[in-house]
Amino acid sequence: MAASPKCLTGDRNAIDSFINSFDTFLFDCDGVLWSGDEVFDGVPETLALLRSRGKRTVFVTNNSTKSRQQYAQKLDSLGIPCDADDVFGSSYSAAVYISRILKLPLGKNKVFVIGEAGVEAELAAEGVPFIGGSDEAFQRDVTPADFGGIADGSLLDADVGVVLCGLDFHINYLKLAHALHYLRRGALFLATNLDSTLPMHHDLFLGAGSVLAPLENATGQRPLPLGKPSQAMMDAIEGKFRLDRSKTCMIGDRLDTDIKFGIDGKLGGTLHVQTGVNKKEDWQKTDAVAVPSFYADKLSDLLLAK
Amino acid sequence: MAASPKCLTGDRNAIDSFINSFDTFLFDCDGVLWSGDEVFDGVPETLALLRSRGKRTVFVTNNSTKSRQQYAQKLDSLGIPCDADDVFGSSYSAAVYISRILKLPLGKNKVFVIGEAGVEAELAAEGVPFIGGSDEAFQRDVTPADFGGIADGSLLDADVGVVLCGLDFHINYLKLAHALHYLRRGALFLATNLDSTLPMHHDLFLGAGSVLAPLENATGQRPLPLGKPSQAMMDAIEGKFRLDRSKTCMIGDRLDTDIKFGIDGKLGGTLHVQTGVNKKEDWQKTDAVAVPSFYADKLSDLLLAK
Repeated sequence: MAASPKCLTGDRNAIDSFINSFDTFLFDCDGVLWSGDEVFDGVPETLALLRSRGKRTVFVTNNSTKSRQQYAQKLDSLGIPCDADDVFGSSYSAAVYISRILKLPLGKNKVFVIGEAGVEAELAAEGVPFIGGSDEAFQRDVTPADFGGIADGSLLDADVGVVLCGLDFHINYLKLAHALHYLRRGALFLATNLDSTLPMHHDLFLGAGSVLAPLENATGQRPLPLGKPSQAMMDAIEGKFRLDRSKTCMIGDRLDTDIKFGIDGKLGGTLHVQTGVNKKEDWQKTDAVAVPSFYADKLSDLLLAK
Repeated sequence: MAASPKCLTGDRNAIDSFINSFDTFLFDCDGVLWSGDEVFDGVPETLALLRSRGKRTVFVTNNSTKSRQQYAQKLDSLGIPCDADDVFGSSYSAAVYISRILKLPLGKNKVFVIGEAGVEAELAAEGVPFIGGSDEAFQRDVTPADFGGIADGSLLDADVGVVLCGLDFHINYLKLAHALHYLRRGALFLATNLDSTLPMHHDLFLGAGSVLAPLENATGQRPLPLGKPSQAMMDAIEGKFRLDRSKTCMIGDRLDTDIKFGIDGKLGGTLHVQTGVNKKEDWQKTDAVAVPSFYADKLSDLLLAK
């Protein structure tokens, strides 16, 4: 059991000490910086404060539907100046894993994608060939000919060595049937992330982990996740930003992704804010999935710092 | 551990004794009578032999995509004269359960369907109101307006008290999102069956249990299955056909659905044939999910009877 988390809200000395302890802050976005398209009050000012003190700010998101470039544009539009290099998303994490860690042999290096344009953009940027995804050829009903051609392999691409699943708002039986048969033929099963739900409009919708559940159920296999709390993502972040883990703090609203990600990664600290999915009651339980080292009501409570 | 299964193949006395022991035979269809649209040699003659000896033949299928009427037509077309009353499918089982067991109150008696026309036909025949399913209004991409309207409830039907999931070749995010939100508002979660895979073209595709997996993953709930091996289905079959369980034999190719269904239902016997998914090696394992009382290479081995 970790020591009790320290409350920062309303405690100027604690906030100053907290900020001084770290040189890099990793931010989850949804539920920390904003909800949907609505930025929380004081968040742009808080980011500006941290940067004015020389802190590096990195945005770490499991949302696989947007590319880093699209995410940076969203941050910019909400008053947080940012460029794509400040963003580390699960699609990027997956693309980097495939291109730099897996290093698939030619002839088995193609990725079948279940996911949106964000996944495709990151794979393309890493030079990884892919099919599926948003390709119009897969946006249709399955036909009797598909069943035959998938079963006998004539409709499958022999170069596919990976099935990569992210959140896909255009999921259908045809795409799932292709993915299933690549997996049955030995393709690696990867996921941008395993979030079962997607917070939107103060409610929950289906997340990437639920969209890929048919494939888990039919194959009995679990995919390797490349988003939070996977340490494959932490390793990639450390490599890219050359960060000192002991001087890095993860800030998030979810215990099972954000806070666990920071703890498993042996970061110097984790800060839990109450503006998203989990509340402090969740880590006060004896069976809490992760307990942060700091907590605050909201991110902008840090503005109390001198 | 059950006694060793008795082999019928090539043993005329054993076959005669087997047939004489029962007055009703329940047949699984796919893998027993046919594979896909190809009836196995000698199967129509075997059915004719049993009927000539005064046996009742009932076709019990987990395939929810066809109605009983459509199934009877398929049997007819393959040389097995049959009418809809000889068929008991998981869609019918679910419709009967909803209309006669659940007896939902007016204003909470509508069913949101994930499934094909077979489910809809059976619900309609039982007078159960439903939405979703094959309705063209749900055969499209999810839009931003859908997320808002589902979250605030304005796009949901307040009369829905049940989400019923069967195999759906037209599954999409929009239908899953509606189903998820009915479940989150307290609707009962039912399934025609939980088969994870669907045998076709000598290969496996996604079955009903995989199509509904996103909803299990996002809600943490398991649906109540109304197909084999659910005893709700056995109770409904017993009620409809007024059968004497001790004089009834279940014939099937799958241990986890067919044979388990017969054993759990305390039928007089179960016969496993080797023409489908499971082979005798599967029940010879010490951790076999179910062990039949009889086995044969194929159904038409019974033709050796006098």
